[in-house]
Amino acid sequence: MNSLPKLPGIAALQALYRQGSLTPLQMMRELLARIAAYPDPAVWISRFDDGALLETAGRLGETPDPARPLWGIPFAVKDNIDVAGLPTTAACPAYAYQPAEDAQVVARLRAAGALVIGKTNLDQFATGLNGTRSPYGAPRCVYNGDYISGGSSSGSAVAVAAGLVSFALGTDTAGSGRVPAGINNLVGLKPTRGWLSNRGLLPACRSLDCISVFALDVDDAECVALQAAGFDAQDIYSRPAPTLPLRLRGFRFGIPKDPPWYGDALAEAAFAQSCEQLRGLGAELVSVDFTPLFDTAALLYHGPWVAERSAAAGEFLRTHAQDMDPTVRGIVEQGLRYSAVDAFEGEYRRRELQQRADAIMASVDALLVPTAPSVYTVAQMQADPVELNSRLGLYTNFVNLLDWSALALPAAFRSDGLPSGITLIAPAWQDRALADFGRRWLKREILPAAQPKPASSLRVAVVGAHLRGMPLNRELTELGASFVEATHTSTAYRLYALRNTTPPKPGLARSGEGAAIEVELWDLPMENVGRFLAGVHAPLGIGSLELADGRWVKGFICEPQAIAEASDITHYGGWRAYRAAPPS
Amino acid sequence: MNSLPKLPGIAALQALYRQGSLTPLQMMRELLARIAAYPDPAVWISRFDDGALLETAGRLGETPDPARPLWGIPFAVKDNIDVAGLPTTAACPAYAYQPAEDAQVVARLRAAGALVIGKTNLDQFATGLNGTRSPYGAPRCVYNGDYISGGSSSGSAVAVAAGLVSFALGTDTAGSGRVPAGINNLVGLKPTRGWLSNRGLLPACRSLDCISVFALDVDDAECVALQAAGFDAQDIYSRPAPTLPLRLRGFRFGIPKDPPWYGDALAEAAFAQSCEQLRGLGAELVSVDFTPLFDTAALLYHGPWVAERSAAAGEFLRTHAQDMDPTVRGIVEQGLRYSAVDAFEGEYRRRELQQRADAIMASVDALLVPTAPSVYTVAQMQADPVELNSRLGLYTNFVNLLDWSALALPAAFRSDGLPSGITLIAPAWQDRALADFGRRWLKREILPAAQPKPASSLRVAVVGAHLRGMPLNRELTELGASFVEATHTSTAYRLYALRNTTPPKPGLARSGEGAAIEVELWDLPMENVGRFLAGVHAPLGIGSLELADGRWVKGFICEPQAIAEASDITHYGGWRAYRAAPPS
Repeated sequence: MNSLPKLPGIAALQALYRQGSLTPLQMMRELLARIAAYPDPAVWISRFDDGALLETAGRLGETPDPARPLWGIPFAVKDNIDVAGLPTTAACPAYAYQPAEDAQVVARLRAAGALVIGKTNLDQFATGLNGTRSPYGAPRCVYNGDYISGGSSSGSAVAVAAGLVSFALGTDTAGSGRVPAGINNLVGLKPTRGWLSNRGLLPACRSLDCISVFALDVDDAECVALQAAGFDAQDIYSRPAPTLPLRLRGFRFGIPKDPPWYGDALAEAAFAQSCEQLRGLGAELVSVDFTPLFDTAALLYHGPWVAERSAAAGEFLRTHAQDMDPTVRGIVEQGLRYSAVDAFEGEYRRRELQQRADAIMASVDALLVPTAPSVYTVAQMQADPVELNSRLGLYTNFVNLLDWSALALPAAFRSDGLPSGITLIAPAWQDRALADFGRRWLKREILPAAQPKPASSLRVAVVGAHLRGMPLNRELTELGASFVEATHTSTAYRLYALRNTTPPKPGLARSGEGAAIEVELWDLPMENVGRFLAGVHAPLGIGSLELADGRWVKGFICEPQAIAEASDITHYGGWRAYRAAPPS
Repeated sequence: MNSLPKLPGIAALQALYRQGSLTPLQMMRELLARIAAYPDPAVWISRFDDGALLETAGRLGETPDPARPLWGIPFAVKDNIDVAGLPTTAACPAYAYQPAEDAQVVARLRAAGALVIGKTNLDQFATGLNGTRSPYGAPRCVYNGDYISGGSSSGSAVAVAAGLVSFALGTDTAGSGRVPAGINNLVGLKPTRGWLSNRGLLPACRSLDCISVFALDVDDAECVALQAAGFDAQDIYSRPAPTLPLRLRGFRFGIPKDPPWYGDALAEAAFAQSCEQLRGLGAELVSVDFTPLFDTAALLYHGPWVAERSAAAGEFLRTHAQDMDPTVRGIVEQGLRYSAVDAFEGEYRRRELQQRADAIMASVDALLVPTAPSVYTVAQMQADPVELNSRLGLYTNFVNLLDWSALALPAAFRSDGLPSGITLIAPAWQDRALADFGRRWLKREILPAAQPKPASSLRVAVVGAHLRGMPLNRELTELGASFVEATHTSTAYRLYALRNTTPPKPGLARSGEGAAIEVELWDLPMENVGRFLAGVHAPLGIGSLELADGRWVKGFICEPQAIAEASDITHYGGWRAYRAAPPS
């Protein structure tokens, strides 16, 4: 009989379950004892009672269900995300309500077999990056209790880092899913906006909010995200995910030029050490000018986006101003000052900055930043709550406004023993490519060579029914292919008229004794090649052809058996001439 | 010597130029005479003087320049788009300024050889769909001078319909590029937002404005759009265009259920006639509920988007209220009443409607609507300027807010001799697919059969180095392919170990006497097939394979010459067994 690992990662628990050396019920008993013993009283806002949790875990039985990838995995939920059976407070007791149903992501994770333990503390209304703006207390960094946990997803991060759950859901509008991951040495996956449904999330800035995942490693975080994600037409910002390559093209990372370290030499040294390690693994780090990104971030707290917070909490503010955290109240009140003209002019400014930021992003494979440029004690934070909070968001604030994806990762420790994370930032929908990098980074694997820059089209040589004026030519033009040139193969080919093909088609075959055969080159948009290939039937296929000038391009090839049965028409020099000839 | 055709379409002029039977200078002489003789004084706001136009045309010489696709083609520009050398007035004389340079689209068209004749009248600040809101007069429908031209691109539409230019640029925020096309029997191409740069356009609603094209036929409109389009990082709403198939998948069109005809039986009958013609050509017309689209439209004039008009013209309003058209002024003033909270709440509402509208669009291949549900005399319009204007936009207002593309097309004439256009509406970036339909419609061609619904992935059988655990398997996983099953080919195949391949690779060849060979099936995302195929090298290619259960899937095939030189390893039953066997 094994006991619960100190840090119960998903893969570790699953291995014990599969071996039959731990059951969900045993796991839950140990977990509840550990939660009860954990000294920080500020982690949870509410929990299911022990009896109910033991009953739910017991009902799973002892045999893992392969159809439920998170069978028996305990998790925590930030208390601005609905869980049926527990109140949603947003860390504002006067605001609390009893949700009728689970948020969509919680429902999906439960359906996958995961077990909700309870709701975690946060900066009130998810407004803050530090974790001290809550009447339920300030959770502490698990590495040093004098220090803040980071926020706003403070309790979720601490619950995972302390081994009280396998993973936790947070939210991230300006960095709330990344800053506390950095301070507690966790993976913080800030998904592309709209990948995970926000149905059942209390909004902070509704156009920017992302539900995020805290986990012990990248596999865990990605596994949770894949279970939680999915298009949801009932969430207004949900989007169907495109399918993109799962790897970064290379590891050329843009790092901030002359970053402000606010006098924190330990943070600076730790980031330098992480950069050195990355270079040793094969990454190329280039300094880029973050000015357009910082200018974007300024819109979030000093521009009309503050009005989104007023739209979310304004009605409550009107009736319960005295029930709000004063710092949070100050921010929500600011939003009421902006006009719709300001809002549109803010959006124009954001678009202008987006064009510049996209150009920066296009010059590298991803951006690499310290997750936060410093860390503060609870006492320091309480003494200067707005300025220090703003510093914490230096490298996170701009990401959601620019519709980018991000992954916070554990990195070199500071010399005072505190963690010091790094964050990779990439365009939208690169979540899984970032995860691929993160996995390699956590194992300090040598990074693979960069992939060649993807071509936007594939050059294809056509030889028969796809030539201009021939019956299948429209299959090319309707897929946006453009004609490049008429040319010939090398003299290493023979041309055959295939039997029983409609419309009539030739087959081309490489041969020691051949001739130059007429072909046309077409550039087919890369994303439409699949549709074209789907329409190519046996015995033909797309392989590689040598041209008269020595170039190799993709082009039509033919299976041997069909060639063996076909008539050799090489002497015509091409399909056009053969088809034009009178029947012999 | 030919003279200028009555309607000087691009292709017609080009044919005369190529034949040498007309020169740009001769064209310009005739055109200027025609413009001088045209009785409607409200078409133009300004023109280059005759001498300058003749000199510019003369400078082109007599021999068409094949590198300039619009060589010698005269066009007009709506007077809210900058043309260097002429003032931009937006139909508000007090607002006029002298632009330092051409708008980006004008510069591109001039570079392609097109000749700007002058600037055309519009509803002031492009605010209106009727053409009567201008101190420069109300241009008239070319088919009946009692009737409005439609607007706001009033002068541009009349200039083309009257044969005074080959094409004209308009703008379209709520329908200004479509309504006047419908009333004057023109093609009105309302491009996807961000395809044509808005640099040098005076904004109406900056987030929604599109520069549009009026032309006599679809080929002309598409040719102009292709010359004018292109990503422009200096335009905040410019976007790079993805490459999509150029044809609609089918011709199943959603038409409005129970459309309000406002008592206009002639418009109703004309639309019914167009629908009947379309059905005869093979289109399937299904009634759909337009409620979410009409609800979206309501946001444009009765919601915070009005504040975009205030953002554009508000400063001028403060200092020159008395210089503005009173109806336009009323609209611009309204926008100042909205708060930033209203703006964000409007955007949330728009997003909610977008999800519902997208579901409607996904149920058909395009939407088909009357371009406008009625048409009015100038007298009627002046008597009820707001209500009648609002009716004109019934089927155009929602399109830009939903980020859709649209193409207005000539259709059946009404029994009173007025035109009555139809408009096709499709998702963003379907501009060329709509053009393909439009070309067929204008020729009343039988519509082709629907294409099968595009699969989102291609199933590929792999046989060698791409099997799980083999060296090239990552080429599949990194492109997002997912493993489906391990199975066998039919017994019609032989397997060969190819010579000189790194890593070692097999070749599969169909044969009368073969065996069932082990294969794995993988589903490769359709858009990544091209990247996968680009990495397949000679003598291999992707063709079609028959499986043991009779299915055919795409899979690796091999050129005959390589098979002839390879060792037959069929008796191993698969590449895995061959590789595992001790060297013989």
